[in-house]
Amino acid sequence: MRLDIKERLKAQKVETPSWGYGDSGTRFFVFKKPGAARNIYEKLEDAAQVHKYTGITHSVALHIPWDMVDDWKGLVHFAESLGLRIGAINPNFFQDDDYMLGSITHPDAKVREKAVNHMIECIHIMKETGSKLLSLWFPDGTNYPGQGDFRKRKKWMEESLGQVYEKLEPDMKMLIEYKTFEPSFYHTDLADWGMATVIAMKLGPQAKTLVDLGHHPLGTNIEHLVAFLLDEGKLGGFHFNSKKYADDDLTVGSINPHELFLIFNELVAAENDPTVDSDIAYMIDQSHNLKPKIEAMIQSVENIQTAYAKALLVDRDALEDARKSGDIIGAEEILKDAFNTDVNELLYEVRRDIGVPEEPRKAFKESGYTEKICRRRSYDS
Amino acid sequence: MRLDIKERLKAQKVETPSWGYGDSGTRFFVFKKPGAARNIYEKLEDAAQVHKYTGITHSVALHIPWDMVDDWKGLVHFAESLGLRIGAINPNFFQDDDYMLGSITHPDAKVREKAVNHMIECIHIMKETGSKLLSLWFPDGTNYPGQGDFRKRKKWMEESLGQVYEKLEPDMKMLIEYKTFEPSFYHTDLADWGMATVIAMKLGPQAKTLVDLGHHPLGTNIEHLVAFLLDEGKLGGFHFNSKKYADDDLTVGSINPHELFLIFNELVAAENDPTVDSDIAYMIDQSHNLKPKIEAMIQSVENIQTAYAKALLVDRDALEDARKSGDIIGAEEILKDAFNTDVNELLYEVRRDIGVPEEPRKAFKESGYTEKICRRRSYDS
Amino acid sequence: MRLDIKERLKAQKVETPSWGYGDSGTRFFVFKKPGAARNIYEKLEDAAQVHKYTGITHSVALHIPWDMVDDWKGLVHFAESLGLRIGAINPNFFQDDDYMLGSITHPDAKVREKAVNHMIECIHIMKETGSKLLSLWFPDGTNYPGQGDFRKRKKWMEESLGQVYEKLEPDMKMLIEYKTFEPSFYHTDLADWGMATVIAMKLGPQAKTLVDLGHHPLGTNIEHLVAFLLDEGKLGGFHFNSKKYADDDLTVGSINPHELFLIFNELVAAENDPTVDSDIAYMIDQSHNLKPKIEAMIQSVENIQTAYAKALLVDRDALEDARKSGDIIGAEEILKDAFNTDVNELLYEVRRDIGVPEEPRKAFKESGYTEKICRRRSYDS
Amino acid sequence: MRLDIKERLKAQKVETPSWGYGDSGTRFFVFKKPGAARNIYEKLEDAAQVHKYTGITHSVALHIPWDMVDDWKGLVHFAESLGLRIGAINPNFFQDDDYMLGSITHPDAKVREKAVNHMIECIHIMKETGSKLLSLWFPDGTNYPGQGDFRKRKKWMEESLGQVYEKLEPDMKMLIEYKTFEPSFYHTDLADWGMATVIAMKLGPQAKTLVDLGHHPLGTNIEHLVAFLLDEGKLGGFHFNSKKYADDDLTVGSINPHELFLIFNELVAAENDPTVDSDIAYMIDQSHNLKPKIEAMIQSVENIQTAYAKALLVDRDALEDARKSGDIIGAEEILKDAFNTDVNELLYEVRRDIGVPEEPRKAFKESGYTEKICRRRSYDS
Repeated sequence: MRLDIKERLKAQKVETPSWGYGDSGTRFFVFKKPGAARNIYEKLEDAAQVHKYTGITHSVALHIPWDMVDDWKGLVHFAESLGLRIGAINPNFFQDDDYMLGSITHPDAKVREKAVNHMIECIHIMKETGSKLLSLWFPDGTNYPGQGDFRKRKKWMEESLGQVYEKLEPDMKMLIEYKTFEPSFYHTDLADWGMATVIAMKLGPQAKTLVDLGHHPLGTNIEHLVAFLLDEGKLGGFHFNSKKYADDDLTVGSINPHELFLIFNELVAAENDPTVDSDIAYMIDQSHNLKPKIEAMIQSVENIQTAYAKALLVDRDALEDARKSGDIIGAEEILKDAFNTDVNELLYEVRRDIGVPEEPRKAFKESGYTEKICRRRSYDS
Repeated sequence: MRLDIKERLKAQKVETPSWGYGDSGTRFFVFKKPGAARNIYEKLEDAAQVHKYTGITHSVALHIPWDMVDDWKGLVHFAESLGLRIGAINPNFFQDDDYMLGSITHPDAKVREKAVNHMIECIHIMKETGSKLLSLWFPDGTNYPGQGDFRKRKKWMEESLGQVYEKLEPDMKMLIEYKTFEPSFYHTDLADWGMATVIAMKLGPQAKTLVDLGHHPLGTNIEHLVAFLLDEGKLGGFHFNSKKYADDDLTVGSINPHELFLIFNELVAAENDPTVDSDIAYMIDQSHNLKPKIEAMIQSVENIQTAYAKALLVDRDALEDARKSGDIIGAEEILKDAFNTDVNELLYEVRRDIGVPEEPRKAFKESGYTEKICRRRSYDS
Repeated sequence: MRLDIKERLKAQKVETPSWGYGDSGTRFFVFKKPGAARNIYEKLEDAAQVHKYTGITHSVALHIPWDMVDDWKGLVHFAESLGLRIGAINPNFFQDDDYMLGSITHPDAKVREKAVNHMIECIHIMKETGSKLLSLWFPDGTNYPGQGDFRKRKKWMEESLGQVYEKLEPDMKMLIEYKTFEPSFYHTDLADWGMATVIAMKLGPQAKTLVDLGHHPLGTNIEHLVAFLLDEGKLGGFHFNSKKYADDDLTVGSINPHELFLIFNELVAAENDPTVDSDIAYMIDQSHNLKPKIEAMIQSVENIQTAYAKALLVDRDALEDARKSGDIIGAEEILKDAFNTDVNELLYEVRRDIGVPEEPRKAFKESGYTEKICRRRSYDS
Repeated sequence: MRLDIKERLKAQKVETPSWGYGDSGTRFFVFKKPGAARNIYEKLEDAAQVHKYTGITHSVALHIPWDMVDDWKGLVHFAESLGLRIGAINPNFFQDDDYMLGSITHPDAKVREKAVNHMIECIHIMKETGSKLLSLWFPDGTNYPGQGDFRKRKKWMEESLGQVYEKLEPDMKMLIEYKTFEPSFYHTDLADWGMATVIAMKLGPQAKTLVDLGHHPLGTNIEHLVAFLLDEGKLGGFHFNSKKYADDDLTVGSINPHELFLIFNELVAAENDPTVDSDIAYMIDQSHNLKPKIEAMIQSVENIQTAYAKALLVDRDALEDARKSGDIIGAEEILKDAFNTDVNELLYEVRRDIGVPEEPRKAFKESGYTEKICRRRSYDS
């Protein structure tokens, strides 16, 4: 058992996002972090640090056009030279005046076509970079009652996504993200997992639902809907982050580590079940505008490892027995025992085995990298 | 236009629930209302009053076993003698110790079988009473992390519902209700419209989703998901009520009449669209433990009429133009114009045409019926 | 009665914010609105348009340093030449790297001193401009558990505000705003009305609480806390806007006009009660990044007028009777009667009396002003 | 340090509620638990079991009239014979038809007087039983807009509470509880901590605020308002339980153990600070209708001990340093280190020292007590 747990921890992989290494903030202000990466090359350098210290963040998600380059092969080689590969490709539909009333749900067919073409361009980039995931988040929605025709917008959305779906190669997946609100404040065209999943079901087996931990109404039982999606074969992946109120995009596991554990509890159960497709993309998407970027990313990776380790420790045979016999307290305590276990030593072992420091964040902090980029990047600019 | 509006208002139908005429309350207390109906015969008598004064509440939903009788044909005749017919049949899964850990999601196959048989019994009652709607709400869920196996429970639910679905006659529909929480406080097996709808899609065309206005997380844009369901042909019906916090079950339109209007705005748009199946069951489900029962029911019916009337007044051609041209304020103001219109005179006309008092609630209040049942029913008891 | 209602509507005053005339947006993007005002002079010109067409927006709130000028007397004269005066002065604590960890709650005394000095500077501007309101909103808070010492920060806040309070002239007021979250995502030092009000009580009679309609958790009964504050003599004023989810800053009355009416219902009741201090600042604070700015501001003013008019129509004697006799439905219907009344003709009369167009928004839209500033301001830039 | 931690854990005290040992449920159903206590004597017997196995639950809160007896001295002796004493006295305002429109906020002075007299009766019971805490929760509120006059109700409430406050003996405290909603669904007269606290401030130093962990809107930062209340000297005590949605009344620490830890983190910090009054009543108030009663109560006590132990382990000097230097990640990790520490061995030591089993819940479960009362109490009934 212990052996299997270690092997699974060693095999764990988490993707980090290029945009997590640059400056970001709230609508009120963007606090500039010293040394924050200014382009995709610097972002990859920083991502390589996270991988160097954690050993499990092999791939980096790109955001287009933020990370646009002329020479994709050159970028792939640069990434490879850092021990990285290119992960999910994320088109952008929220920074263009044309999209004020929507992208793939815009009343004007030309705007929808522009959005479709942008996605097709991203599929081209996937081919160039070896990426297999087209990760779609649409800010599309309306701010006021009456502004949009819900059903027409839905049809446009389905039509547009259908055109993109057709362009996918057989080994590519389209991940469809949903969000309750923001930046749209009256309705969002893909407002919840149900909408994303019904659309994905209609598109076909290569379309899956992407769960961002910050995109639900308060009170949502995320682990339950994760299990539902797993059972339907429609869980495509995660955007990990943490929230207390809305889409706060805090570092992973900071606000409610118990919830993160319960989500991993479902994922481990699904991994153990051969009937479940558990080819799932684990990605971080956080936008911490106060913490130092790289250290915060490593902290998130550590917290994800902790949650997974604890979930692996759950005594599943005993759990099944307790459930069968209606022993509510017993079942709960089995989870709690795992959650309350100190997994530091276990993770130290795992990290030693894969050749990274026992305490990645501390080791990175002491490495002097931050000081180095602060000097270099401010000098350059 | 005005003519068409009047015709549609005259054709509007709303079902009232038998349980809305008896006493109900919170977990803290049930305040006894003088004269509250004590059995299905008294409930039908009271429902007949609502129909007498409003003219649009022809049918009454039953709750089994609360409304169980030996002689269903006799009950149908009694209803007919009051000008009523039997509406949706609602089985009960929440008042039996066997269901403590679930009904159709219970780990014990015998309990699931019991629940399935209860639904089959209800289909039998549908045949006896001429009802075409099996209206299903399951309290099934868990209170604590670990208590249940989400995916197993889902499979049991699908299996059980499949067994019931098979027993439906071709002209019957199964309406599947969902609810965020209560009486389960950690997870509910059918927690949101997405879960109900995915299940309904897998069951077949006779299974539809039932929207209860009080069963969503705060902030949910209900009119949007109503439109989504309409577009998918999966909107089976409504349980109308009103809420400020959770499943408050207040009288319809009391807390947020604007939201009710926006929902009807989608319904009217769908009615106008020949491509949309708008055979939808409009039912009230409220549990006001402070207001006098019959008067409160009439008040709800009036509020539903008001919302529908205002939605019918929306200038849809102008709305479409505003939307096309991106005139957000214009589109919003078109809705607001309709919402701010005083529709009392219009409703008076409609009511005169169908032969009921212009102000149903006031007329009922002055009728002396409440005083009569207070005397009679307290005398009897 | 009707006469009194008209007089009160004619006497109504609403302040508009200078920042409502410039571009603003979400953390994702700022859509540039053609002709949006670029400095305080253009903002005042636009505010003068709102006043020209509505007749009730005499004053304009300033934001410092956004609206900083060298010559305050000159600015006052410019405003007066447009028929305007300077309203509340709003210092800014959210656009300075020094404030990353807080302003008046920052662990470093020098930063707190800087924030205090900024407020004292604003009091100086109040003297120069004739403003009587220092309107304070602090983004201060933390993003992560452990980050700040709640009680120390509270003491620093009280100490800092005390230093500012001392500098107020006797006819000045300090309005203290609160907010659940954003831009802080774990805790906000003034998180709710209770915190703001306890602080205001300790500061003294010139300190009052400011209610922004978008700064509460979902489900909050705002009209109730408004009544509570009125009863305590601590309601200083409002920032009017509308929300569906979080601090959405939509135009006033757009999402839930019934709630706005219920708030005004409390305000009218308080105005009628000689024992209540109802010297309250009515201010708009919206940040609609999709609607044209000036037209949207006029729309908000119209919606505020509508809500006030309807609240004035409530039959308060009948309401009191219904409440006394426990007639819940009766009391509710009295409010509903007022809410459902079409007040357009009443508002047309009022507007004719004060010499503005019957339909301000439409009249403004037809005036050609927007086209003019689009030409001029794009030419200039 | 470790020594001090052990001493503080040994000194910890938690009160259990008499009503936690009887049957309770939701508005849908009350599942009968075998052997559930049927009167105050059986409830005390069960509470004595919790104390026997945990060693820290010396006192039991009573609910009047549920726990009414003729001979209070006899009850005290019975409790003492079980090693218990009487804790907070809780009057009941929610199970009497007279209170349908409110108790101390009822429009009828006679009803208010009845409620005041009930509290005065409870003060008499306090004198008889040695209780020092009058613990007040009012369901008072309204269900519909217009139903009540907020300000009048507030005045009646203050007046009534003032009459009761006067009757308190100098060493007695009045704890005032608040709640967002339920059983009132439009407004609750004491809707949040701010209302309870402003009232308590006006009443005087013997009135304090009671925090029930389930009585806040979703998203509320409870640890922050606990710190605020501590700083104001107004934190009277807690009703511990757990929630995911509304006032779910689940066992303590089950849904979000991290939040419970963060609350205890504030309490420990306050205990360390000689300027803070930390004479706080720690009480459990849960209403788990699915778990076996006594075992669930012990589970809650264990979870409270765990949270307190972890909070005691926080390295407060290092935390202060991290906060001072703005090291957000460092401060967060100091809390996380404590939270992730396995405190089982520490708690075993503490329990051995106070002479109770290392694992109270397991020991109780194996004791056969439940089987014994199931036999005896069903036999009796």
